[in-house]
Amino acid sequence: MNDGAMQPYALTLEKFLDHAAKWHPNTEVVTADISGRTTRVGYAVLRQRALQVSALLDGFGVRAGEHVATLAWNSQSHVEVWYGTMGMGAVCHTLNPRLTAEQLAAMLVQSEARVLAVSADLIPLAEAVCALSPLVSDIIVIDGDGSEWRSRDDGPRVHALDERGGTGGACELWGDFDETAPSGLCFTSGTTGAPKGVTYTHRSSYLHTLRLLQADVIGLTSRDVVLPVVPMFHANAWGLPFAAPAAGAKLVLPGRVADGASLARLIMDEDVTIAVGVPTVWVGLADHLDKVGGELPSLKRIIVGGTQMPPALMDRIERRLGVAVQTSWGMTELSPSGTFASPHDTARQPSLSGRPAIGVDLMLKDEFGDPLPAQRNIEGHLYVKGAAVIERYFGDSESAADKDGWFDTGDLARIDDAGNLTITGRSKDLIKSGGEWINPAEIEAVIGSIPEVSFAAVIGRADPKWGERPVLLVEMREQQMLSDEELLKPLNGRVASWWVPDDVVRLAQMPLAPTGKVDKMRLRQEYGGN
Amino acid sequence: MNDGAMQPYALTLEKFLDHAAKWHPNTEVVTADISGRTTRVGYAVLRQRALQVSALLDGFGVRAGEHVATLAWNSQSHVEVWYGTMGMGAVCHTLNPRLTAEQLAAMLVQSEARVLAVSADLIPLAEAVCALSPLVSDIIVIDGDGSEWRSRDDGPRVHALDERGGTGGACELWGDFDETAPSGLCFTSGTTGAPKGVTYTHRSSYLHTLRLLQADVIGLTSRDVVLPVVPMFHANAWGLPFAAPAAGAKLVLPGRVADGASLARLIMDEDVTIAVGVPTVWVGLADHLDKVGGELPSLKRIIVGGTQMPPALMDRIERRLGVAVQTSWGMTELSPSGTFASPHDTARQPSLSGRPAIGVDLMLKDEFGDPLPAQRNIEGHLYVKGAAVIERYFGDSESAADKDGWFDTGDLARIDDAGNLTITGRSKDLIKSGGEWINPAEIEAVIGSIPEVSFAAVIGRADPKWGERPVLLVEMREQQMLSDEELLKPLNGRVASWWVPDDVVRLAQMPLAPTGKVDKMRLRQEYGGN
Repeated sequence: MNDGAMQPYALTLEKFLDHAAKWHPNTEVVTADISGRTTRVGYAVLRQRALQVSALLDGFGVRAGEHVATLAWNSQSHVEVWYGTMGMGAVCHTLNPRLTAEQLAAMLVQSEARVLAVSADLIPLAEAVCALSPLVSDIIVIDGDGSEWRSRDDGPRVHALDERGGTGGACELWGDFDETAPSGLCFTSGTTGAPKGVTYTHRSSYLHTLRLLQADVIGLTSRDVVLPVVPMFHANAWGLPFAAPAAGAKLVLPGRVADGASLARLIMDEDVTIAVGVPTVWVGLADHLDKVGGELPSLKRIIVGGTQMPPALMDRIERRLGVAVQTSWGMTELSPSGTFASPHDTARQPSLSGRPAIGVDLMLKDEFGDPLPAQRNIEGHLYVKGAAVIERYFGDSESAADKDGWFDTGDLARIDDAGNLTITGRSKDLIKSGGEWINPAEIEAVIGSIPEVSFAAVIGRADPKWGERPVLLVEMREQQMLSDEELLKPLNGRVASWWVPDDVVRLAQMPLAPTGKVDKMRLRQEYGGN
Repeated sequence: MNDGAMQPYALTLEKFLDHAAKWHPNTEVVTADISGRTTRVGYAVLRQRALQVSALLDGFGVRAGEHVATLAWNSQSHVEVWYGTMGMGAVCHTLNPRLTAEQLAAMLVQSEARVLAVSADLIPLAEAVCALSPLVSDIIVIDGDGSEWRSRDDGPRVHALDERGGTGGACELWGDFDETAPSGLCFTSGTTGAPKGVTYTHRSSYLHTLRLLQADVIGLTSRDVVLPVVPMFHANAWGLPFAAPAAGAKLVLPGRVADGASLARLIMDEDVTIAVGVPTVWVGLADHLDKVGGELPSLKRIIVGGTQMPPALMDRIERRLGVAVQTSWGMTELSPSGTFASPHDTARQPSLSGRPAIGVDLMLKDEFGDPLPAQRNIEGHLYVKGAAVIERYFGDSESAADKDGWFDTGDLARIDDAGNLTITGRSKDLIKSGGEWINPAEIEAVIGSIPEVSFAAVIGRADPKWGERPVLLVEMREQQMLSDEELLKPLNGRVASWWVPDDVVRLAQMPLAPTGKVDKMRLRQEYGGN
């Protein structure tokens, strides 16, 4: 063929670090430790250290396509292990330290990882995991001293990350593989079912990163300093360890701490411009500033996601911190970003999660999976399509998408005339009563806004006549008492009368999943009467 | 394989229009005609019209992979023909109306296009082209009435664009092909050699578009209104007809007019926020505003490229218009963008063309093609690599890249400590005298800044002793006289004494290429003495 051609260019993730090392060599990655000390490194040196991790893994016999697990906080070393693993074509399996050893071991059985990188302070958990995971042969201790563990000899071999560097030839293991190769594995939080593995590829995460860099999404620039409080073990820290070097932005990693005082100090000391995390993180920051005073002049924007932003909290943060709150929506299966409110939008609303940028598309469908004729101003089941959207879960042979290639998010949503998404509930939480659907999220929003209520959850209970009927489970704030009638009264006129729960159950403590969300699966098991 | 997967998602250009039609359906594409009238259409309707173009082309027997040529200004119809062609997998071959019929016919012989879309006011040129291009069987007249031509019957069949719509089934020809399929063909301007064809692919232009959308590059948002004065027939109007719908930005197309009064009116009437064009375009705009007064409050940024920005012009535009001038560097072979100064950079300098964003990389090499050991603060031959960089010219069997995959841009450049690029000349213009190189661009910069001088060019003349010696060719401003000594005197202390030209040749009119640059090839033929 003589019709001309453009250069080959594989969309692989090590290119982000190559780019940062060459064009932003002195831009820093800063890590805070639990004592408040910071360590820092430029991208050029960080790349060298990541190459040494590749050499270390090669020395352990790790090959392309094999999983390497991490059980670690947001830190420079964790970033080095990410790039060292992915850069040589191995797959980085991030583990959530908030899960139990049994849960983590079950995930390692699936990924068959033989190497595990562990933050030093997580060694007790790692010990318990390894006792249940005989495949793990090598441990790399990062972020601190692992000498305590090193003394034992009845388990896997234990190495300090700084053993790297003894081997040469690292560069030959860097890049140069197919862009469709897997790069990462992350299990869903499993609040509505067993955790399932999501495999990211170099191509999907590369394209996801380019989406984040769009001016209407996160729009990082080389002048930005970004603080991901959202953990690297949960949906890639929303992709920021990729986006920051790709844009040449400074990356500030909080380690395991996320209290208001530590975050305020980090933001002040490092001139953070964009901070990213779930809504509750920012309560602590606002509380701290209210208590001790002080301003955060560098901070321009806080990006929230993971759950809907409470309006009062958004208002408090925007007023107290003088920053814009940018709402978003996503999930592990979406790498994880779906929609973002534009940072340039002046009419911000906490319930609106923004529009999809090019590369991801949304569709509202009915309960049978057929597209709703009207896609605007009506509630539907939210389906997504895109380059960074799951096609098939790890270990599954069947597609996770429907016959038209759309992935069912399990969320219920509306889309307004301007294309803005509002998440209105979860389809699995829907209650079918007398053949009609009740959305518990709408009831919970009303009851949850009662000042005396700490947590409210509505589930369906088996009913011989109606199939299911709604039941309210409630945890009151300390010392607060309200009658059932007082609790249910605010629903008058806010929801249909047949949506009002038949019963109220008081709980001393609402069961929560590791993500902080109400564990509805457990509530249904205990109170669903099925 | 049960290791999970992400969804397939082909990087094809029709997705930009699909995205805009679905998520920004009423955002407008506005076209000005020569009389100053504007027409406008929303992206949803524009997509329907592009689908009808696909159906029309299908009716002509056009198949995927085949070229469809356009000879047209920046207009809505031209955009529709672009997407209608590329959306069905055919290849859009843009022709420059400033070339001769012979030059254009030679290009059509290469691309073998059978269908040609022509702006009505270019019909005389198209007639001459078709007389030399027997392959062209069907003409589509856009942007006006083609009835004058329709009456003849000794040439190709002539159609009005609005014949589309008669055929159905357009949707089946939309997308659904491999992302590596060719999408466009554009010939280089040929100021330093015969014009060569550059073939863009869907993938390369898609990735180029994502680069433009980065906040540190153009960073278009859905609130922006972008005016590409740079023509669609020249390096894809810098990719803006792709970037605008991808971002959901309003697109304002100036038709064939680029005078200051028309541009000022368009910017004012349409609330343009970002205007894009070569430096000289903005002289007319500043002149007009100086003459009639008025402000352009919506305008935030002017993006320049194609040639180095004159410092005095940059200063004048920033002061008179109160906007930031964003410099850039690129070329047809780069799709065309290479580097951009960050729009967030407050320390703007006209000579700096910015840094490369992720997706394109730069390398300085010596005259033998070996990388310079030091890549900073030294002049070298500029090579590039990236997803939207040429690998092989149309019709060539040999690679245009070197053994390491780098494309030689033919430019000479420096890169400063912060990574900013400065173009310092063209390697083909270098003069080898006594075994050492003389860069004529440095001499031209000094002579060109003499107020009495209109154009200055320095070329090498064959010399029996030194190999080559520099000769200055100069066109003086009207009524201006300077002696040879007066012309050369400013070089004292600015360049090495042996760089001072041996001879001065006065020209009544400097030969210019269609791009407005000095035609050095012709100068060398006439005055190089080879």
